[in-house]
Amino acid sequence: MSVQPLRWEDGKLLMLDQRLLPRRVVWLTLRTHADVAEAIRGMAVRGAPAIGVAAAYGMALAAQAGADRQVAMAMLAAARPTAVNLFWALDRIAGLPSWEPDAVLAEARRMEEEDVACNRAIGRNGAALVPEGANVLTVCNTGSLATAGYGTALGVIRAAWEQGKVSFVYSCETRPRLQGLRLTAWELIQDKIPFAGIADGAAGSLMRAGKIDLAIAGADRIAANGDTANKIGTYSLAVLARHHRIPFLVAAPSSTIDPKTASGAQIPIEERDEIEITEIEGVKIAPEGCPVVNPSFDVTPSELVDAIVTEKGVFRAPYNFAL
Amino acid sequence: MSVQPLRWEDGKLLMLDQRLLPRRVVWLTLRTHADVAEAIRGMAVRGAPAIGVAAAYGMALAAQAGADRQVAMAMLAAARPTAVNLFWALDRIAGLPSWEPDAVLAEARRMEEEDVACNRAIGRNGAALVPEGANVLTVCNTGSLATAGYGTALGVIRAAWEQGKVSFVYSCETRPRLQGLRLTAWELIQDKIPFAGIADGAAGSLMRAGKIDLAIAGADRIAANGDTANKIGTYSLAVLARHHRIPFLVAAPSSTIDPKTASGAQIPIEERDEIEITEIEGVKIAPEGCPVVNPSFDVTPSELVDAIVTEKGVFRAPYNFAL
Repeated sequence: MSVQPLRWEDGKLLMLDQRLLPRRVVWLTLRTHADVAEAIRGMAVRGAPAIGVAAAYGMALAAQAGADRQVAMAMLAAARPTAVNLFWALDRIAGLPSWEPDAVLAEARRMEEEDVACNRAIGRNGAALVPEGANVLTVCNTGSLATAGYGTALGVIRAAWEQGKVSFVYSCETRPRLQGLRLTAWELIQDKIPFAGIADGAAGSLMRAGKIDLAIAGADRIAANGDTANKIGTYSLAVLARHHRIPFLVAAPSSTIDPKTASGAQIPIEERDEIEITEIEGVKIAPEGCPVVNPSFDVTPSELVDAIVTEKGVFRAPYNFAL
Repeated sequence: MSVQPLRWEDGKLLMLDQRLLPRRVVWLTLRTHADVAEAIRGMAVRGAPAIGVAAAYGMALAAQAGADRQVAMAMLAAARPTAVNLFWALDRIAGLPSWEPDAVLAEARRMEEEDVACNRAIGRNGAALVPEGANVLTVCNTGSLATAGYGTALGVIRAAWEQGKVSFVYSCETRPRLQGLRLTAWELIQDKIPFAGIADGAAGSLMRAGKIDLAIAGADRIAANGDTANKIGTYSLAVLARHHRIPFLVAAPSSTIDPKTASGAQIPIEERDEIEITEIEGVKIAPEGCPVVNPSFDVTPSELVDAIVTEKGVFRAPYNFAL
């Protein structure tokens, strides 16, 4: 079982700095909710479920410091726009009857434990959809690092692997931030699951060559109609999977479903800094003055999603998550 | 008009080292055909037409040194497997009645001049297919740097831009070697054509958002049935273009058409070193021991190619380039 990205210790939140992985394993010590907001914004922690739990711990730090609850919530909510789990977690803390530090911390801990249990349930539910001997394609990082532990889409792969159903995993490197090559590869190596990293552009030709039986992605927000926002490139994979008649699954906790968002058109898509494209690890790769467009997420319309796997079960089109 | 990548001077071949662009402009001095073979293999020069002309100059160096014609040909032919222009150029030199150095050099110079003229004709023929105000997506580098000058797919974009038809260009960065971000961006900046570099995974969502009117790629080999080998990721773009009902064009000199290759299944696909994926500019990005798969090219079946633009005219499906 691979590392968990968050740890509460002596009134502080320790956070594995995922920007430095796999080269360096560095734990940040976060003492205030502002530290947590900055860590979320800067992507020291990423992955929708992990962001949610980190924000809950951020609220525990705010309560401990006697900060104003509304102000702390607003600061954490502004850290990133697309993943709904962030707002879901803050709403849950806001709904507590008390702003007493121990109560807030207990709730954050509960959310962390629940997320791991939830991911194990997603894994079980999803593994049932994985054919024997499957070659599975995935994108970005949806593993232990993206959650409180175990993972969503990578949790499904883990569970199916534990059941002997997975032959091989292809991990799209996932530019610009290369989470598939840096983080998913790191987790797969630790779990000794056979895999290869690939350039994002290689997914189509692998599918055409019959080397992919199943594609599975996580989600940052799922609209009421099943439209799914996830890491940029996910939509392209869904189109390619449909073209090749390969099942395309989304795995996420039910907290990723946002019944208040009617369709994908209403999901705000974060545009991140150009430097994510123009530089890699501080090395400039684009020419001076090169303009870039860098949307961090895209939306996959529900008709391309064969199933949405949650801890509560597997949903299939037509999706209707409206309250 | 941007830089030409090859220059014959004082009995030596000067070659712009494209591995160092855009950060440094360094000209290699190549004195032997072995130097040229190594430069092709190492991708100091790349792009099917440029490889062809470079190989012809390599033969001129061999003739000048009094080397064995067959041995020199074999060495150059072994440098890279996929682009047919390499073999086409060597065959043309092999067909000369004489191995006299001046005759070989004259033929190499003729091939270089012909390639520029050919690209201008491709540009004219292709520009006629570009709608007014078009937003055009392209991949890899198919410009001056990939040819003897002007370019193939980028030549079409240049010609259409000169005619006032192009609004904007999206350049897929084209992992692993990032030719779209390093080289195409460099050429577009010089030509002052408005553009943005994008992560390869962003192409699908741009198409879905209606931001792409036309996609155009080069080719490393076109089979008799129109199946086209090109930079890895091209096939995915062709599938995405078809899904969104966007025309997908291939632009290449007729020397890229290989009537002896019946279909794409017979085109050898070069698998390049893992380091192209695991490191960028010498910086390791993948974890230690990360396995990768790195096919350099993919094949787009002819049914996804709306038109093949050559200097001899525009071809449309069903293609039949058999002799």
